[in-house]
Amino acid sequence: MPVKLNSSDSDFAATFEAFLGLKREIDENVDRAVAEILEAVRTKGDAAVIAYTEQFDRLTLTPSTLQIEEAAFDAAAQEVSATTLEALKVAAARIEDFHARQRPTDLSYRDAEGNLLGYRWTPVDAVGLYVPGGTAAYPSSVLMNALPAKVAGVERRVMVVPSPDGKINPLVLVAARLAGITEAYRIGGAQAVGALAFGTHTIAAVDKIVGPGNAYVAAAKRRVFGKVGIDSIAGPSEILVVADGDNDPRWIAADLLSQAEHDTAAQSILITDDAAFAEAVEAAVVALLKRLPRSAIAQQSWNDYGAIIVVGALTDAPALVNHIAPEHLELAVADPEGMAAMVRHAGAIFLGRHTPEAIGDYLAGPNHVLPTSRTARFSSGLSVLDFMKRSSLIGCTAEGLRAIGPAAVLLAEAEGLDAHALSVAIRLANADAAQ
Amino acid sequence: MPVKLNSSDSDFAATFEAFLGLKREIDENVDRAVAEILEAVRTKGDAAVIAYTEQFDRLTLTPSTLQIEEAAFDAAAQEVSATTLEALKVAAARIEDFHARQRPTDLSYRDAEGNLLGYRWTPVDAVGLYVPGGTAAYPSSVLMNALPAKVAGVERRVMVVPSPDGKINPLVLVAARLAGITEAYRIGGAQAVGALAFGTHTIAAVDKIVGPGNAYVAAAKRRVFGKVGIDSIAGPSEILVVADGDNDPRWIAADLLSQAEHDTAAQSILITDDAAFAEAVEAAVVALLKRLPRSAIAQQSWNDYGAIIVVGALTDAPALVNHIAPEHLELAVADPEGMAAMVRHAGAIFLGRHTPEAIGDYLAGPNHVLPTSRTARFSSGLSVLDFMKRSSLIGCTAEGLRAIGPAAVLLAEAEGLDAHALSVAIRLANADAAQ
Repeated sequence: MPVKLNSSDSDFAATFEAFLGLKREIDENVDRAVAEILEAVRTKGDAAVIAYTEQFDRLTLTPSTLQIEEAAFDAAAQEVSATTLEALKVAAARIEDFHARQRPTDLSYRDAEGNLLGYRWTPVDAVGLYVPGGTAAYPSSVLMNALPAKVAGVERRVMVVPSPDGKINPLVLVAARLAGITEAYRIGGAQAVGALAFGTHTIAAVDKIVGPGNAYVAAAKRRVFGKVGIDSIAGPSEILVVADGDNDPRWIAADLLSQAEHDTAAQSILITDDAAFAEAVEAAVVALLKRLPRSAIAQQSWNDYGAIIVVGALTDAPALVNHIAPEHLELAVADPEGMAAMVRHAGAIFLGRHTPEAIGDYLAGPNHVLPTSRTARFSSGLSVLDFMKRSSLIGCTAEGLRAIGPAAVLLAEAEGLDAHALSVAIRLANADAAQ
Repeated sequence: MPVKLNSSDSDFAATFEAFLGLKREIDENVDRAVAEILEAVRTKGDAAVIAYTEQFDRLTLTPSTLQIEEAAFDAAAQEVSATTLEALKVAAARIEDFHARQRPTDLSYRDAEGNLLGYRWTPVDAVGLYVPGGTAAYPSSVLMNALPAKVAGVERRVMVVPSPDGKINPLVLVAARLAGITEAYRIGGAQAVGALAFGTHTIAAVDKIVGPGNAYVAAAKRRVFGKVGIDSIAGPSEILVVADGDNDPRWIAADLLSQAEHDTAAQSILITDDAAFAEAVEAAVVALLKRLPRSAIAQQSWNDYGAIIVVGALTDAPALVNHIAPEHLELAVADPEGMAAMVRHAGAIFLGRHTPEAIGDYLAGPNHVLPTSRTARFSSGLSVLDFMKRSSLIGCTAEGLRAIGPAAVLLAEAEGLDAHALSVAIRLANADAAQ
């Protein structure tokens, strides 16, 4: 049974805080094992990757079979139905179109003293995309991670995906080809992260690693951070629905369950101003759970981490939303845009009664990799910017330096950095000595 | 003596790789101590912060003296000369002007099916700025970290700065006031990072922590990452100068030493196509070292990590630059913009003979917090974007969902996520049932 809160209760604030403080992450003591795996891959390369793949995935590889060959992609294409392939193509086109609008623009101008200032964006050279194997092998994640890299102009877009007992979800390979993956390897776990970060004889190192994974993958990404870039560490999925009494309770129940079915640690919260509607949604959840294939997972998530919060008025909702800072926020209210304007922290906002969160998971266009566990307070979903970086540009003319240099000399001296001061002063002293 | 390489030598590639692999970070085993400090601050709050400040800074505080009072800012203003204050104001104005041009724009459009798509940028609510005490207390760093947060619209801009034996650099306080710091505390080390991340009775928690610090501060930032956002972990400073023989060797020598004087682990590299010029620069470095107050530091950095690379032609330089991916790149050549166009990885590029790197440290305008240790391959300098985050917006109409929903249902079913499929399908089945 989910937590039920009413904002008019005297202990609401304290109960709400306690609820927010619930720790949903599963702590696994994997860090030591991961450190060992990474060190082995760093020093022994392919041999270590092959040995761990044999141990964890029960799959015997050689350096020449690490890479997934074109024939495997071709075979996968045969296994996927025409309708599913068409749906993947629709998704890929929409995601690519949205992300193309995120391409940043360069800046270049001259200040009043004639000095050139600006910056320039360039793509990362090579990125690795981690794709989980087994039940969590989602082709939609392949599209969402690989397409922004392609749009950014990243040249090498490398996928790693474990294939336990030699099995790979053909949809993953089809999505990879659609999303423009340039090379792919049938490896996973910390050993795959190590191969991407350090490089091996067969697998050239990349500059950044993105994509979801289990606790081993997350720990490995944390450890190689600095050597390569990483995306954020994803926590369990979350949805917060703000709904008035004019919604169909079954629609809202389905939305709550669409997150709950991901994972027993997922979280679904309903905020409403209508107590009767809240009860109707709860009843609809119970009814839907009876017919869902993943009901055991969804039921446990809803029982352990679900919540229904009844507020006195919907105008109380934005403050709670901002405190929760949800990954996904649905505003199923009469004026969703008005309420959205009062929301400061949310990974993605789904506006109105006809926008189920799942439409964003697959093909609306925006990325489905979003900040979880209240990190929307300070971070954003995956975007083209995550695959690019900015170089500042500064170009002084002799006259321009003469205008702004003296203040820099003063500040460098005040900081006791005399070579800094000298490097400016020496040019001021004889600004015409060199061209 | 710095390393000397010539790109025409047969062993150049191997020697260059070995040089790049030099580990400049000082590994200190501080992580365990930091874990203890953070846990004490998390559970005991102010009392722990006060106890560690007594122990490490020899300063006795109470909850009411943790905060730096207005009177201390006033007193600091009295200690700073009018010319230095004026220089700080010039710097603050130029930095603010540049960063104002980085403010991102929102996106909102309708797709062909009538669905609203876009995103909206919002500032982080509260950020903590770590400012080191002692010799590394640089007012320029206060400006460079605090002003982008102000431009972003961050409401609480909190500075922490240790004051060993009760001493604070008055320039730091003056810069803090200029940069619009909204509250400041006289604490430092891992305990200050803990107070900012977890909050105490006196110090409200922030959402993101930025700013340089020692190994304890860096380890603490790594540990609280996730609970709050952090900026990158800064390594030792670096400069790479590409210069032809038409430069004044003393100018280039001063530039190389301006990084070397930061830190014995700093790195200065010269690439030139003129062997005689290389020798002249080396001689100029020796001569300048004799008159620099920080010559011991600069000398050791230059000896241990400095390098002079002579190339056959300047057209060979960009490939080496991209391999090095320097924090600071000076292009003191005839066509700096032409060469810059071939550079893919550099934190900041200084164009032409009249642009010493130090001008960017203080007041050119772009940020001086830049990616070190080859991380310019995948990351950027500090910017307004680091203090904002993006919420995606998706708003489907009933008709729009009818157009794109069926493909989403197919994909959700292909992934075995039936509640996802249901949440879309249920709206398609009776799209007119709700408003």
